[in-house]
Amino acid sequence: MRLRNKPWAEEFITNHPEVIIPNPEEYKGKWKEVFGNDNPLHIEVGTGKGQFVTGMALANPNINYIGIELYDSVIVSALEKVLDANTPPNLRLLKVNGADLAKYFAKNDVSRVYLNFSDPWPKTRHAKRRLTHEGFLKLYESILVDNGEIHFKTDNRGLFEYSLVSMSEYGMLLKYVSLDLHANMPEDNIMTEYEEKFSAKGQPIYRLESQFITKK
Amino acid sequence: MRLRNKPWAEEFITNHPEVIIPNPEEYKGKWKEVFGNDNPLHIEVGTGKGQFVTGMALANPNINYIGIELYDSVIVSALEKVLDANTPPNLRLLKVNGADLAKYFAKNDVSRVYLNFSDPWPKTRHAKRRLTHEGFLKLYESILVDNGEIHFKTDNRGLFEYSLVSMSEYGMLLKYVSLDLHANMPEDNIMTEYEEKFSAKGQPIYRLESQFITKK
Repeated sequence: MRLRNKPWAEEFITNHPEVIIPNPEEYKGKWKEVFGNDNPLHIEVGTGKGQFVTGMALANPNINYIGIELYDSVIVSALEKVLDANTPPNLRLLKVNGADLAKYFAKNDVSRVYLNFSDPWPKTRHAKRRLTHEGFLKLYESILVDNGEIHFKTDNRGLFEYSLVSMSEYGMLLKYVSLDLHANMPEDNIMTEYEEKFSAKGQPIYRLESQFITKK
Repeated sequence: MRLRNKPWAEEFITNHPEVIIPNPEEYKGKWKEVFGNDNPLHIEVGTGKGQFVTGMALANPNINYIGIELYDSVIVSALEKVLDANTPPNLRLLKVNGADLAKYFAKNDVSRVYLNFSDPWPKTRHAKRRLTHEGFLKLYESILVDNGEIHFKTDNRGLFEYSLVSMSEYGMLLKYVSLDLHANMPEDNIMTEYEEKFSAKGQPIYRLESQFITKK
């Protein structure tokens, strides 16, 4: 994600606490209060410009969504998308680091984690930063319901290969794998900005659904 | 695999019992007698014209190999390849049905199963015939050593997607996945006839290594 300097970003973010929650640590374990219902919560880690999470929120009003993005200059684009969509009541954004999820979510707060076109961190010495590294899987498991799921899309072959092995080694179940999502496009596929760009170039989009296996 | 009628095939096969073992059921549990050593045994199910298994046997003299192929008209090509390679002492062929492996191999007889460019059987009603269907995985497990491995290559996207999920659902560990084998060709890759043909067309070759997890 190219980061442009956007000096107005901070003020714009502060002015929209109804979308970008300013004090998310206060809701750990009680996100139901934010949404005012018991619907399942799906989060997207690395929400970028927000097209995916906004599209999902509009398409699935009975699911709550939180898009997580660290960078001011990026999350403002997501904020604009949310406002353009008339601020769906089942959608919020958090401007926090994905590595700190456990500060904001308790076990069972989240039903599903979406990862879309995450940074591949191709160098081996950066493997720990990949959002499907064992350390992150452990983090997701610590905030997910039992048998919670990860849904992951990427155009990056190396990251997808790594993720299949990483998840398998972690003991996760692979429930679904597509190695060319757009060859048999699911009707309910919501594209990210990256996905539109890369698939237009003819690059295959990889997708998987995996599940943590809760040991009783 | 296109099957040509080869009327001379039966006699050619019968005349080479030193390669195509005529009575394999007699060696169940005692393949060491055939090879005269304790080396691990790797089998290829669906050996086709034999380029892979012959190449592997020549490259790895301390491993024993058996190529399994049902059809007379196909296995004769493999037989020719073996004879052309001066009949490596660590290589045999079996003209039997892969579905009958348990007739010829006992638990612990086999250390690794190779599947290369297996028939994809794309129709759902034929899923049971895919060599990575649960029924076949169970069969391989029944003849493999503890924590035995499957090494699988194919150009067929649908079969590879299916196989990743099937193996994961079976409880196998995915140890290695490549979604474009020839993009980073391993030095020790031995190509099958199909692999040469399909990769020359620029189609990606998929490859995985998976392992049965023996519960103690």
